[in-house]
Amino acid sequence: MTAAPLTCKERDAALLRAFEFLGRRWNAAVLGKLQDRPAGFRELSRAIDGISDSVLSNRLSSLTSAGLIVRSVDEGPPVSVSYQLTEAGRALMPALGHIAVWADEHLP
Amino acid sequence: MTAAPLTCKERDAALLRAFEFLGRRWNAAVLGKLQDRPAGFRELSRAIDGISDSVLSNRLSSLTSAGLIVRSVDEGPPVSVSYQLTEAGRALMPALGHIAVWADEHLP
Repeated sequence: MTAAPLTCKERDAALLRAFEFLGRRWNAAVLGKLQDRPAGFRELSRAIDGISDSVLSNRLSSLTSAGLIVRSVDEGPPVSVSYQLTEAGRALMPALGHIAVWADEHLP
Repeated sequence: MTAAPLTCKERDAALLRAFEFLGRRWNAAVLGKLQDRPAGFRELSRAIDGISDSVLSNRLSSLTSAGLIVRSVDEGPPVSVSYQLTEAGRALMPALGHIAVWADEHLP
């Protein structure tokens, strides 16, 4: 990182925003699923245990509005829609990986 | 990290646990406040904008049960109680820092 270090206040505010967003059930799981490659709705729905289609659809919209994923349409035929990480979404992956390792080790 | 890399399933499960826990409002803020040094209840209550005493007390118990912070009593006089990060809590700090920088840059 080349930017100036965050002040304590900026850091607190940023952490609150991050966890209000990432803490919303499924958001982190959806991002994690897109880590390696783009995926379509059905693929995500199958891959994420226990998520309903309406909730998945809601989370995809909210991640898209936040600029973390992007929806692309391949006109085909057949038409296919897929979701992939944006640069902002991709930038989060190393931190998510770190948190996963930490949780695996320290959160029973 | 010297441990074997997490499988996809382990990673997903760990992330869900982490965000269910850290996503609970104030948990990350309380941990962040203890990053540099131990603090007492009043100090935390003043430092975290908008948290009520009963919620702070609840979060301190839950972070203590999870093994991320520890409560220590200095018999004084005067008696004083303070909270500090455990090794597990401390191990989370680099990832939290990374998430804060990411959110500052990418979450409006």
